[in-house]
Amino acid sequence: MKQESFEWNSADEVMFYDTDVGGVVHNLAYLRMIEYCRTKLAAGIGFDLCRMAETSVYPVVVRTEIDYRRPARLGDVIETRGWLEEWGRVRFWCAFEMRRRVSGELLVSCRQQLAVIQMPEGKPLRLPGEPGNPV
Amino acid sequence: MKQESFEWNSADEVMFYDTDVGGVVHNLAYLRMIEYCRTKLAAGIGFDLCRMAETSVYPVVVRTEIDYRRPARLGDVIETRGWLEEWGRVRFWCAFEMRRRVSGELLVSCRQQLAVIQMPEGKPLRLPGEPGNPV
Amino acid sequence: MKQESFEWNSADEVMFYDTDVGGVVHNLAYLRMIEYCRTKLAAGIGFDLCRMAETSVYPVVVRTEIDYRRPARLGDVIETRGWLEEWGRVRFWCAFEMRRRVSGELLVSCRQQLAVIQMPEGKPLRLPGEPGNPV
Amino acid sequence: MKQESFEWNSADEVMFYDTDVGGVVHNLAYLRMIEYCRTKLAAGIGFDLCRMAETSVYPVVVRTEIDYRRPARLGDVIETRGWLEEWGRVRFWCAFEMRRRVSGELLVSCRQQLAVIQMPEGKPLRLPGEPGNPV
Repeated sequence: MKQESFEWNSADEVMFYDTDVGGVVHNLAYLRMIEYCRTKLAAGIGFDLCRMAETSVYPVVVRTEIDYRRPARLGDVIETRGWLEEWGRVRFWCAFEMRRRVSGELLVSCRQQLAVIQMPEGKPLRLPGEPGNPV
Repeated sequence: MKQESFEWNSADEVMFYDTDVGGVVHNLAYLRMIEYCRTKLAAGIGFDLCRMAETSVYPVVVRTEIDYRRPARLGDVIETRGWLEEWGRVRFWCAFEMRRRVSGELLVSCRQQLAVIQMPEGKPLRLPGEPGNPV
Repeated sequence: MKQESFEWNSADEVMFYDTDVGGVVHNLAYLRMIEYCRTKLAAGIGFDLCRMAETSVYPVVVRTEIDYRRPARLGDVIETRGWLEEWGRVRFWCAFEMRRRVSGELLVSCRQQLAVIQMPEGKPLRLPGEPGNPV
Repeated sequence: MKQESFEWNSADEVMFYDTDVGGVVHNLAYLRMIEYCRTKLAAGIGFDLCRMAETSVYPVVVRTEIDYRRPARLGDVIETRGWLEEWGRVRFWCAFEMRRRVSGELLVSCRQQLAVIQMPEGKPLRLPGEPGNPV
């Protein structure tokens, strides 16, 4: 199972609305950038946004672990790499690293566990045997 | 028609996530505070959140005009007063004033025009003759 | 004065966090997309993010007018075009149009008036005679 | 050391902007509610917002662990209880539980580790021996 092929790279310039009065990027802003990366990563794993809107089957975050190592500032570009770390029967883990462009310093590392839910009932679904296929 | 009786007052302490690197509250944060005030105001006008979730009839903002007059800072409490300004056949206007607690200085003034929509079709509905009754 | 040359085009895929329970993009999410477009537009006009972080001279929004014409949905790509509409002595106006990619339908139109402020005092500064030069 | 006395309870009505197209509260919205609770909790521990704005000494989140157990929906009131879990020499842990009002169901549990930083240098400071005193 070539999990390592499930990967997504995105980049975000730090905007005013990402910073707070402390002069650095606010902890919630990194998670919004991770959401974007994970959405694109999930599309590659078989969870396409348009299809989800039709079927009401959504991957949902059930756990987040995030470490804030160094702060980013206005004017920085943050590179986010996300990949599929583990694929189970009803849950999977994605992992993320965020680095400052140019210096390559590690700013944030994060892991998120996801389940797949049939809305609006909220019923958890079994994952397909291999990632990359639609649920 | 006692429109003036449709009014809501709310208060928000400025949080870190409301500020930006400039040291003041970010322009989007005031609009989130206004959203809260308008939601409570709308409930009094006949748009209850729980009922909306059942009927999928929602008031939606069709136009916002907002003037940023003075900045709020970390530690300020912002008092928001919202009221029904005008009630038409298919649209209504709400108005808002945001002031710094203690000094009473005017920080922000805002007007929002709303229509009432049946989702998911997005069909605009006729307003009842008087505010305060369910659509 | 070739104002028309001050223009920026950006594109946003609608993410989960942009939508609300009504199934459409929330009114605040469009404004965050406009913030991004305006930041890039402002950089071309002479307000560079890195330089701002050094000098504490920031363009700030003093008025927003926004019309929500049609809703965007999950899976849509929203194209935002922003341009410099008017350049005055102490204030300038930017204008924005947001369209659904593929169909080209107009979703949102917006105008924002900005002033340039020396922080942390909040002192308004005179604009240079022509856009495109640093303040 | 009566850590258990460092506690804060807050409540949030679920707003439109908290929900997403799946019909439930978006994972980032819970974290914004936790930020509010933690800010009030931190004030009791000795980190007052106004004082922070003066001294530029801020508690910053260095790690978040959050478990999403059950979804909240439009119309729910979410009660958040936060407390000081552990007080070390340079870091402390806060813990949070979020429950649906009325039913009392556990929706979210969360732990956050914080350090105290002198901005803008980003220098970590030693914590006072006991919580409740200013750094």
